[in-house]
Amino acid sequence: MSAARNGGRRAVIAVIGAGACDARVAEVAYEVGRLIAARGAILVTGGMTGVMEAASHGAHDAGGLVVGIIPGLDTSTANAYCDVVIPSGMGQLRNGLVVQSADAVIAVAGEWGTLSEIGLALKLGKPVVGWETWEPARAGVPSTEPAHAVSANDAVESAFARIGE
Amino acid sequence: MSAARNGGRRAVIAVIGAGACDARVAEVAYEVGRLIAARGAILVTGGMTGVMEAASHGAHDAGGLVVGIIPGLDTSTANAYCDVVIPSGMGQLRNGLVVQSADAVIAVAGEWGTLSEIGLALKLGKPVVGWETWEPARAGVPSTEPAHAVSANDAVESAFARIGE
Amino acid sequence: MSAARNGGRRAVIAVIGAGACDARVAEVAYEVGRLIAARGAILVTGGMTGVMEAASHGAHDAGGLVVGIIPGLDTSTANAYCDVVIPSGMGQLRNGLVVQSADAVIAVAGEWGTLSEIGLALKLGKPVVGWETWEPARAGVPSTEPAHAVSANDAVESAFARIGE
Amino acid sequence: MSAARNGGRRAVIAVIGAGACDARVAEVAYEVGRLIAARGAILVTGGMTGVMEAASHGAHDAGGLVVGIIPGLDTSTANAYCDVVIPSGMGQLRNGLVVQSADAVIAVAGEWGTLSEIGLALKLGKPVVGWETWEPARAGVPSTEPAHAVSANDAVESAFARIGE
Repeated sequence: MSAARNGGRRAVIAVIGAGACDARVAEVAYEVGRLIAARGAILVTGGMTGVMEAASHGAHDAGGLVVGIIPGLDTSTANAYCDVVIPSGMGQLRNGLVVQSADAVIAVAGEWGTLSEIGLALKLGKPVVGWETWEPARAGVPSTEPAHAVSANDAVESAFARIGE
Repeated sequence: MSAARNGGRRAVIAVIGAGACDARVAEVAYEVGRLIAARGAILVTGGMTGVMEAASHGAHDAGGLVVGIIPGLDTSTANAYCDVVIPSGMGQLRNGLVVQSADAVIAVAGEWGTLSEIGLALKLGKPVVGWETWEPARAGVPSTEPAHAVSANDAVESAFARIGE
Repeated sequence: MSAARNGGRRAVIAVIGAGACDARVAEVAYEVGRLIAARGAILVTGGMTGVMEAASHGAHDAGGLVVGIIPGLDTSTANAYCDVVIPSGMGQLRNGLVVQSADAVIAVAGEWGTLSEIGLALKLGKPVVGWETWEPARAGVPSTEPAHAVSANDAVESAFARIGE
Repeated sequence: MSAARNGGRRAVIAVIGAGACDARVAEVAYEVGRLIAARGAILVTGGMTGVMEAASHGAHDAGGLVVGIIPGLDTSTANAYCDVVIPSGMGQLRNGLVVQSADAVIAVAGEWGTLSEIGLALKLGKPVVGWETWEPARAGVPSTEPAHAVSANDAVESAFARIGE
């Protein structure tokens, strides 16, 4: 990647997804987090449960740096794998802070909140890669975004490729 | 609608859509704004150009009250039809303030920013009605939200019906 | 005032102060709100109780337009005199939205939240007039800001004078 | 400190102050940052120049973790010593995110933005220690807050003492 990006700092990847998920989705999120950390990037999530916690767990186990931007003000509500917690106190508006903080975004499944983050990331021109996530269409024509990944590894490879790493 | 909603205040409807649009879309947005005002509701938009301006224009012509929540700090950048301008200084995060301020949301066409607002509105449990807007799907299955409207009148009727008016 | 300000829209004055106050302070806040509305300006407050409610009450009684930007998401928590409620969901960060929305700010007494709004308003270059409010000093030297008013009428006259009206 | 604070995570101290400062103030800010890191806490600042940069520099030199929450969206505008940059895109409203992220706040001199952060921190019940910073008064009576420190070491000792470390 260009050394100029982030003023020479480490790449930052956001993982977005729902606060509740089944074991299969959690496994993918964990692996995505692990691979992000293994590549030396910082992981940022919304800091709570479900996909956010699984990805944070994976990055933590790989020795990565994990940032959680939470909706409330109480840092003790963040999942146990966050090294840095930003208590936004902004509720769902914090989704935007998560997306803005990232060089690329990986969506792992997800509900309406995830859709809002996908839209905002694409509005801001950020690369977004999705695994079993929303497929937006208009007039019956599916969008080419977000990019489609078939596995955790594929998602992470694709995200780093799209930021030039 | 329930008199308890909004503490007895007038209903508030948000119209969301892109900052640039063609004449056909602008015409629908104008009509949506006009009908919202004609029913006595307050219109809230993102305060800028395109669909936001057309809807504001329509509501203004019908004697309605128009609120614009803009991304920047300079109120002179808001369109000419806003009676009240809230300069958020929050960029695209202001999309969330628009949605939060509304009892129901009407999407008129739209780009990625509109998708983010649709997602956030549904996350917050707000009724969303769309005219030629995003159709989110997962695993090839289209969502039943947002509700589909075939005209400006249909969109406004549907939005008010869904808030019990 | 310059017609260019606010794109030709009505002036907007914010009244800031604590969510709980005694009758004497409430009386001044009411009168400040009444005079703002009597001069044709829009009143914006934090939308809750105490000074915010008293000022809103005064503006309402004078037939003015009252905007409340509240910390939570539930518009029914706003005081009864708000015509327009913006539910920020941003907690105390909404103080900044109140200040940003105003051409000038009048502080009526107030606690720590009011001090934060005074600081932010002055940072943004907004005129601030205070009645029995915070007097910031550094190294024992009192600041000349906020401007000192001895009555509700004095505060409102001073605020309008400072925005050229 | 209580292990329960921050869910067992490292303490977080915010250093606030102006974006431009003289060498004497920068020296104190550097030393404050250095001592915060030496005690194992995370430093959070507004991520820009002046006091923010000097404190970040000090913490960086002591091997600490430095977080910068910046007003804009472009992470390359953050100072060179930030390990993690949160691009808020919220302008001066990001002051509140800085304060919310901290267990205690140290103000080093400062201008109006610093006053806003002092007010917000005290509103939120956070300990605030100041070195040559604002002294708020009401009716001629100085507040006992923020606590007064005579040196960088005194400020850091006082801040940690007030969070039970």
